[in-house]
Amino acid sequence: GQPLVVIAGLNVLEDQKLAFDVARHLKAVTSELGLPYIFKASFDKANRSSIKSYRGPGLEKGLEMLAAVKAEFNVPIATDLHEVYQAEPVAAVADIVQIPAFLCRQTDLVVAAARATHKAGGLLHVKKAQFLAPWDCKNIVSKIKEATDGADFTILCERGSSFGYNNLIVDMLALGEMKKLGVPVTIDATHAVQLPGADPRTGGASTGGRRDGVSVIAKAAVAAGADGVFLEFHPDPDKALCDPLSCLPLDGAAKLLATLKAIKAAAA
Amino acid sequence: GQPLVVIAGLNVLEDQKLAFDVARHLKAVTSELGLPYIFKASFDKANRSSIKSYRGPGLEKGLEMLAAVKAEFNVPIATDLHEVYQAEPVAAVADIVQIPAFLCRQTDLVVAAARATHKAGGLLHVKKAQFLAPWDCKNIVSKIKEATDGADFTILCERGSSFGYNNLIVDMLALGEMKKLGVPVTIDATHAVQLPGADPRTGGASTGGRRDGVSVIAKAAVAAGADGVFLEFHPDPDKALCDPLSCLPLDGAAKLLATLKAIKAAAA
Amino acid sequence: GQPLVVIAGLNVLEDQKLAFDVARHLKAVTSELGLPYIFKASFDKANRSSIKSYRGPGLEKGLEMLAAVKAEFNVPIATDLHEVYQAEPVAAVADIVQIPAFLCRQTDLVVAAARATHKAGGLLHVKKAQFLAPWDCKNIVSKIKEATDGADFTILCERGSSFGYNNLIVDMLALGEMKKLGVPVTIDATHAVQLPGADPRTGGASTGGRRDGVSVIAKAAVAAGADGVFLEFHPDPDKALCDPLSCLPLDGAAKLLATLKAIKAAAA
Amino acid sequence: GQPLVVIAGLNVLEDQKLAFDVARHLKAVTSELGLPYIFKASFDKANRSSIKSYRGPGLEKGLEMLAAVKAEFNVPIATDLHEVYQAEPVAAVADIVQIPAFLCRQTDLVVAAARATHKAGGLLHVKKAQFLAPWDCKNIVSKIKEATDGADFTILCERGSSFGYNNLIVDMLALGEMKKLGVPVTIDATHAVQLPGADPRTGGASTGGRRDGVSVIAKAAVAAGADGVFLEFHPDPDKALCDPLSCLPLDGAAKLLATLKAIKAAAA
Repeated sequence: GQPLVVIAGLNVLEDQKLAFDVARHLKAVTSELGLPYIFKASFDKANRSSIKSYRGPGLEKGLEMLAAVKAEFNVPIATDLHEVYQAEPVAAVADIVQIPAFLCRQTDLVVAAARATHKAGGLLHVKKAQFLAPWDCKNIVSKIKEATDGADFTILCERGSSFGYNNLIVDMLALGEMKKLGVPVTIDATHAVQLPGADPRTGGASTGGRRDGVSVIAKAAVAAGADGVFLEFHPDPDKALCDPLSCLPLDGAAKLLATLKAIKAAAA
Repeated sequence: GQPLVVIAGLNVLEDQKLAFDVARHLKAVTSELGLPYIFKASFDKANRSSIKSYRGPGLEKGLEMLAAVKAEFNVPIATDLHEVYQAEPVAAVADIVQIPAFLCRQTDLVVAAARATHKAGGLLHVKKAQFLAPWDCKNIVSKIKEATDGADFTILCERGSSFGYNNLIVDMLALGEMKKLGVPVTIDATHAVQLPGADPRTGGASTGGRRDGVSVIAKAAVAAGADGVFLEFHPDPDKALCDPLSCLPLDGAAKLLATLKAIKAAAA
Repeated sequence: GQPLVVIAGLNVLEDQKLAFDVARHLKAVTSELGLPYIFKASFDKANRSSIKSYRGPGLEKGLEMLAAVKAEFNVPIATDLHEVYQAEPVAAVADIVQIPAFLCRQTDLVVAAARATHKAGGLLHVKKAQFLAPWDCKNIVSKIKEATDGADFTILCERGSSFGYNNLIVDMLALGEMKKLGVPVTIDATHAVQLPGADPRTGGASTGGRRDGVSVIAKAAVAAGADGVFLEFHPDPDKALCDPLSCLPLDGAAKLLATLKAIKAAAA
Repeated sequence: GQPLVVIAGLNVLEDQKLAFDVARHLKAVTSELGLPYIFKASFDKANRSSIKSYRGPGLEKGLEMLAAVKAEFNVPIATDLHEVYQAEPVAAVADIVQIPAFLCRQTDLVVAAARATHKAGGLLHVKKAQFLAPWDCKNIVSKIKEATDGADFTILCERGSSFGYNNLIVDMLALGEMKKLGVPVTIDATHAVQLPGADPRTGGASTGGRRDGVSVIAKAAVAAGADGVFLEFHPDPDKALCDPLSCLPLDGAAKLLATLKAIKAAAA
């Protein structure tokens, strides 16, 4: 079988040194394990719960930082976009262009991202919305194909479904439903453990999480057939500027990825 | 108490004559009942399940059509927007500017819509996302206040919560939770009965609905304390170009609105 | 239309005087309003979260207390049972025999209760489980008919569906789905507002509730077409020995029931 | 770590030969793999959707059949009970006495089963209800301890949570929440894939399932930390007399159990 793909890095870009540190470490770990690696970081968190939350360096500065990571470590880059006008500049830098979950039904954004990414030779990584059934991703895959003359470059990502208020749940059977659409499927274990609007430290003005659950969800999803994992790390998770409660410590990456590799081999 | 506010009209603009017919009829019905009336229609359906679905006349042509309704019948207008650049032109025509449910967490859109609407003297109508707890709307209300120096012009709208796959459910207790935030609350009974991705006529490439349920949800929500109702009509619902399965027949408007008015009086 | 049926009383029997006080008051209130009234109280709470919780006087003593209420006030009686052997003695006293929600799929209990109740000339009130779709109540109705040669004496009750963890939600469209099965439908507004396992006063060893929500759910459900309401009262709700957080004050009964009567008339 | 415990056999007892065939095969497979094995079969399906469904041989005949399996193959036995009076006879034969999910909150049944099982030296296997949060199992564990002077012989089982209507979902994080209560946790992958009330072959008068999903859920749960698996097999699943749609073919047991063993080792 194919090796487990690792899309991993930072939740949001903070400064260049942090991005370098994380990319360097994760590249070394994945090289050692023989796993394909893509560095991920967001330049803008466009849907923070609170207007006061840190959003990132923005499009221009953020893409510069991502290009610097690519140049320094020769790793492919994954990042997400939020508006139609961002499609071309993002696709010029990112090898994997990502559609956020809340926006996966916005036709104009999906079409613009699909066209720009296809033209640039990248892959499109679409997060399944928390309100969407896995089989309904077929409409998204269809939109992308129709926008690009049938090109086959979509990856779908499971990141949890709404389960009552302030909770997400991952349906392991959803992975297989999405794979039936003929595309690879990843698990975003980091966002899947979030408790939307439930951060007790801010009275709900940011999103809480269950850090211990990230590895559980990642292990379960790889056993259930995920082709890749999406994970966010930080050298000091509690100081991460966005979603610290679901962020993993960077120094735990080697052990977790080795375990995931072993589970994939065992489950094959 | 305040009279029941009626935001009603078409799902999506089709042609000018249809918009006139619907506005004329609903204005007459609400005048007879003494209920405040706002004509609603969308110029673009930006998140249709399928790329092939009818989306509407678009921003420029759509706003012209809405302005014509306003001029012809002297009714306030409600319509929704999807991208930041649309905020100013939409607020120039619409008295009620609406944020779609999927986009209610997009900070830039909420801020742009809030500023343009406040400057133009309108009201902002925010649909609560299917994935959002009612108490977490406080973050949206805060974003709007912070963007407009504390202005008080927000209305929140309940349109159902994700309940498993391909189903929505309306929590009648959510209305009171949103009212605790100090804002009026409406019920979008039309969208609340939709079955996302479950239209058997298209194999799930558009959204199904339960037309008989619209009046049930509207009646229940008014009894539960809703300040206003949001309803979509068509003279021939089965021929509506968007969401026909949840669209009400125009000739049933008088009876339904009279019933809702009576329930509001009884429940007071 | 038919007048609104009121099944109301105590959550659990405490002492005879309390039962008399509640029955006397509710009979007077419903007589004044012209609403059919059935006194409800449980003799055993067989599924309390904690083994230490008060369960009630038990079968024998409880049925004596209920018979005393019937004799004193000439009101019909409703109570629930939990085991097969209780069917005959319960049906001998109760005019409405009730199957608890968790047990509505237990074939032997349903059949025994159906036969005993039918023989005694009573009605069978089945609470729809929190895990059951409304249309799946057809299997319960079928079981009852098959056990009683097709007798038509079943009433179904909506009391909320599981919505994530520790929360219930009432689907107002469920009432109509159950009525399609050809039976009257009641709303148990008291239990529908419970937050299973979420009583902050006991760390989850009993069930929490939202007392303010009871009237909201009752009003909404009557507007949505409920034929009857199920409500629990106490002269001093905070001192109720079971589920105080969802118990209504007895002195608010007159106002609430008058409002519900008015809503039913308005919604007809 | 401990080896993976395998509780597996038939959904419901049909005839003695079938029970022998299944026990013989599964004992051989688990012996080969070095996994502890318990033969499981029910003597009565007390909550079938329809009154017409096959329920099994009943208590007396069923316990004889189970005792014969035990004598023939020297394997421990697991079976479930439904009423208080069954506790003693069941505990006399079964090494693992099981409380069905719908009944896990019935205090009398839990207490009777706990006392009889403890006295007989067996283990108590409690299925978490579809409506129960994992952390609320602490009340069940407490009831059992209080009924048996603090004995430590409870195993909790995850078998899915209600997710909208006619669907179950398994929360992989629930396993860890239950393990925090100090007890081993199993995954009932067979029942977890059921679609309650959704069998298209009977119009909903029996429960549907997704057979392909059983191994997915089992693999994911073992990766997520389950201590044991609960699985139902049949030599000819489509002819199983209960729940054929979620039943696994007996001849696939060796491969699945070997994979699960390998995943447990990899995930450790």
